[in-house]
Amino acid sequence: MSKKKELKRIDLKTIENPNFLKELSYKELDLLSKDITEEIIDKVSINGGHLAANLGVVDATIAMCRSFDFSSDKLIFDVGHQCYTYKILTGRSLERLRKSDGVSGFPKKSESPYDHFETGHSSTSISAAKGMAVARDLKGEKYEVVAFIGDASISNGLALEGLNNLAGSHNKVIIILNDNDMSITKPVGGLARGFRNLSNSMLYRRSKNTYQRVMKKTKFGRWILGWTSTIKNWFKRHLMAINIFDNMGIAYLGPVDGHSIKKMEKLFAKAKSFNESVVIHIKTIKGKGYKYAENDDSGAWHGVGKFDKETGKIYVDESTLSWSEVYADALTNMMSEHANAVTIVPATGLGSSLQEVFRLFPKRCFDVGIAEEHALTMAGGLADSGMHPVVSIYSTFLQRAFDELSHDVARMNLNATVLIDRSGLVGEDGNTHQGIYDEAFLLSTPNVVVSMAARESEAYGLIEESFENHGVFCIRYPRSRLVPSKEREQTPFGKWKKELSGHKTAVVSTGPITLELKKLIKDKDVALYNALYLKPMDEEAIKELLQCNKVIIYDAYAVENGFCFALSEKLVSLGYKGEVVVKAIPDVFVEHASQVEQLEQFGLKPEQIAELL
Amino acid sequence: MSKKKELKRIDLKTIENPNFLKELSYKELDLLSKDITEEIIDKVSINGGHLAANLGVVDATIAMCRSFDFSSDKLIFDVGHQCYTYKILTGRSLERLRKSDGVSGFPKKSESPYDHFETGHSSTSISAAKGMAVARDLKGEKYEVVAFIGDASISNGLALEGLNNLAGSHNKVIIILNDNDMSITKPVGGLARGFRNLSNSMLYRRSKNTYQRVMKKTKFGRWILGWTSTIKNWFKRHLMAINIFDNMGIAYLGPVDGHSIKKMEKLFAKAKSFNESVVIHIKTIKGKGYKYAENDDSGAWHGVGKFDKETGKIYVDESTLSWSEVYADALTNMMSEHANAVTIVPATGLGSSLQEVFRLFPKRCFDVGIAEEHALTMAGGLADSGMHPVVSIYSTFLQRAFDELSHDVARMNLNATVLIDRSGLVGEDGNTHQGIYDEAFLLSTPNVVVSMAARESEAYGLIEESFENHGVFCIRYPRSRLVPSKEREQTPFGKWKKELSGHKTAVVSTGPITLELKKLIKDKDVALYNALYLKPMDEEAIKELLQCNKVIIYDAYAVENGFCFALSEKLVSLGYKGEVVVKAIPDVFVEHASQVEQLEQFGLKPEQIAELL
Repeated sequence: MSKKKELKRIDLKTIENPNFLKELSYKELDLLSKDITEEIIDKVSINGGHLAANLGVVDATIAMCRSFDFSSDKLIFDVGHQCYTYKILTGRSLERLRKSDGVSGFPKKSESPYDHFETGHSSTSISAAKGMAVARDLKGEKYEVVAFIGDASISNGLALEGLNNLAGSHNKVIIILNDNDMSITKPVGGLARGFRNLSNSMLYRRSKNTYQRVMKKTKFGRWILGWTSTIKNWFKRHLMAINIFDNMGIAYLGPVDGHSIKKMEKLFAKAKSFNESVVIHIKTIKGKGYKYAENDDSGAWHGVGKFDKETGKIYVDESTLSWSEVYADALTNMMSEHANAVTIVPATGLGSSLQEVFRLFPKRCFDVGIAEEHALTMAGGLADSGMHPVVSIYSTFLQRAFDELSHDVARMNLNATVLIDRSGLVGEDGNTHQGIYDEAFLLSTPNVVVSMAARESEAYGLIEESFENHGVFCIRYPRSRLVPSKEREQTPFGKWKKELSGHKTAVVSTGPITLELKKLIKDKDVALYNALYLKPMDEEAIKELLQCNKVIIYDAYAVENGFCFALSEKLVSLGYKGEVVVKAIPDVFVEHASQVEQLEQFGLKPEQIAELL
Repeated sequence: MSKKKELKRIDLKTIENPNFLKELSYKELDLLSKDITEEIIDKVSINGGHLAANLGVVDATIAMCRSFDFSSDKLIFDVGHQCYTYKILTGRSLERLRKSDGVSGFPKKSESPYDHFETGHSSTSISAAKGMAVARDLKGEKYEVVAFIGDASISNGLALEGLNNLAGSHNKVIIILNDNDMSITKPVGGLARGFRNLSNSMLYRRSKNTYQRVMKKTKFGRWILGWTSTIKNWFKRHLMAINIFDNMGIAYLGPVDGHSIKKMEKLFAKAKSFNESVVIHIKTIKGKGYKYAENDDSGAWHGVGKFDKETGKIYVDESTLSWSEVYADALTNMMSEHANAVTIVPATGLGSSLQEVFRLFPKRCFDVGIAEEHALTMAGGLADSGMHPVVSIYSTFLQRAFDELSHDVARMNLNATVLIDRSGLVGEDGNTHQGIYDEAFLLSTPNVVVSMAARESEAYGLIEESFENHGVFCIRYPRSRLVPSKEREQTPFGKWKKELSGHKTAVVSTGPITLELKKLIKDKDVALYNALYLKPMDEEAIKELLQCNKVIIYDAYAVENGFCFALSEKLVSLGYKGEVVVKAIPDVFVEHASQVEQLEQFGLKPEQIAELL
């Protein structure tokens, strides 16, 4: 990058708020855009984080911060993982991005008065904006409320409910639809196609053909057809405008180049002059300014760990596997062995390493987009018709499909496998993404099995068992890595595994951390149970527990009010009079930090448990 | 009704399956339609149930059963409360409708091979149909999958996700959109307006005006404008067709009169000839054939109890109040006292008796339609902007908004009141509507308060306390009635009420049933605690419990894995060595029956608890 003498270059470290932006020329803004792009690439290469989405919106964020005054106007970044430029422009350093002593990777009210609402899960922005707009109007205040949302997020049910409700109201919200036609991988479904059609209008083409056909029927019509450009352009302009937003009665502006700050500012100004809600459609390039991310359509640069910014090489520890990879491989086996197996994933296929399953079984694999509710109810329909659906989903996103899991699958006692990825503490993603709340609602839902493997071999056993007609068979697994063993074993239904024998004290533990604890306490007189099944529980093992003086229930992957409370009560109901110690995540939202730091603060590191023995 | 000699009249009791329908003339079908209408009015007047929705679809159900063969084709009634005609036509009597020994008010696979999927909650049909269609196509089978869905249900996020996903696929589903422009009360939002516009096209009008304006600019244009009807009709026909379904790429047929069996059959035949998914838009009159229901637009005839079918008088016990009425009155007070209070309800305003609140505070009351997710996230936006949102929702529907309650409200520790109507067993509505699962997920969510009053006076105390910045303050109340006392009292935060003193045994009970138990055991040496707060629990009261030999935890309004397990573990963690007995709803889905029958089967009647003492 050459630095021209006449251009003012901003030292990013000196930024306190976005006010300086108004004094810069468009050329200076371009320079700033490049510097921010560099900064994001640099810091994400060190700390990991969301890269492509952030690079795509550097220009749009600059344009927004010039057109709006977010010290009074409100801005909600949908999902929130694209807020890095905004953090920089509002005086926050990415130096310690996602570390416990640094900024969150998502909007955070405690970080800055410029963050007005916190996000993390997809598709909340329109509904939250509607609430803010209602509050503003009831109070008689004046400011704009802006929801910045991607094309994949807007196809989720919550966003569509929000849009529908906004359309019926007089509370003005400006929706900036960030369309990169790509999302985590590719947006799916009718709306995505609809958005593509806004600039390459199928409607226009269809209507035009019909028009020609009808017109050719009469002499008059043929004559009119000869009269060309004006009416055709009119058609194009006006038929194109009849899109889904028009159908709902929401004004629509665009599409506009999301990398032209000047053009966006024009539309933002127009939107501000409106008295009604309006959608501004901007087209952006995901990964803009970093060739590896720009040229990627696998989604590998969506969320990344450390990488070499020069070569684009993402660091991966090749001596270990992620649990996602283990279950993806186990799932591949099941898809191969069971012709009635169908895999459904709500936009998290890459995150859960399912590329190979999709490649091998394209007809039986469905990425339904960010539509968790639909994923589960569709699974119900499949199971009802004799297929065996496997839904792969992150724990935190399963929260959005609890009703469907219960009402449309479990209630009819249909058979399905639910692979719950990123169960437990997720580390740097922070409090919006913790996978620690599913246990409570799953354990309280009839016809549901809840399980978790401690080792690779057991993962294969659990997924096999899940095809044996036990109802909704949930398998939890964490966001962590393991040394591959290539071993396989059976995991008999409802049975725990006694890892260590001992007399006075017993520990009932679940998940891979059990093996870390095992190493630490193997020489002590302690019984250690690997609770592969959290529901149903192993009645025989529990009888053995009754003989011990002390039982420690150790669940490092969920809040207390799940397996821990259920087992504790079970012991009590059987008349157990010994000591019961519950070690699980307490009743708080857990902020971003490393997983180890998160465990440590709650006394849940294996070393801390060993100290109790 | 005069019976013409030449017409064949069907004795409804003799129907075994819908095959006979094909042999009837349209006049005979009209007679059948009238007889079914009579039968539904008669049986609902005795048993209670959904009236208006069922009367509206008598003709459409007959038409569907003639056009399709549901011994092989699949039919999913969305929500399912409109299936009474279908039950009759598939050989089921409404004699004991909704009784434990009679048919369910919803589709039920165990009742008939003609019921292919069970529903109850709204908006599941399209996603389930997609799953069934995928199963069919993977197996290479041939049959139609039909989703029958109302105009209010289709605006829910789940249905829109389903529609979006269906649009992107080749798996054919026939969607019959039952548009009565009314729903439980009135559909709201942009889509509802969109549907109205399909027959009274605003798009057409807007386009026409633009067209005229553009055309008038040129001599040529003015001349074309003079050339009237053909082009105008073409415009009308073609612009109208560009609706939301077209935008998504789903074929659309209609609208058609949903009371003309002949006309519907024509469209159904056309839809069967399609290779792709298609929406058939039928217009029906809710309550058709019963003047009181037809003329009602309050929604009073949506779901009703017993009534006098001649006079249309709905029986109400005027000496008692429903809990909904109590909280509606308490809410009215709060709306009056707090200018920042805002009420949000997802289409259940009438069910929760909120008409008066809406009448008194029209600007601060929002019925967002069947959009539970949006309701909670909008509440988050309001709270974030300094308002105090009150969300009124049924327990069973709150399941669909768990993620939003947690992620968009509780996580930011925003203040809100959630009025959870129909908590506990709901009786005749059956297993899709039980309000017994919310406790588990609410108790495991940080920053959430969970409470339940036993008496009217406490209800006022709890709702007042909910405005005191305690975070997300949930108040559960059952589907039952009480004798009004007009009394009011404070309910100090986190404090239980000691209803009876005693020494050896203590009962901790929650909700109105506590008072029934109190009457039965008042002369025994038993301490009875009214647990007004399920979270946080009363630490001082718990200390007293430690002195007792036996503690019975009695929660007749939820599954065990909620308050019961939490309190049991609390006692254990404090070193309690006495006996703990948990009395709550076990881990099963609870079928339709009276509330008393449902309690009795689980040993949860107050009399059964008293016997333990």
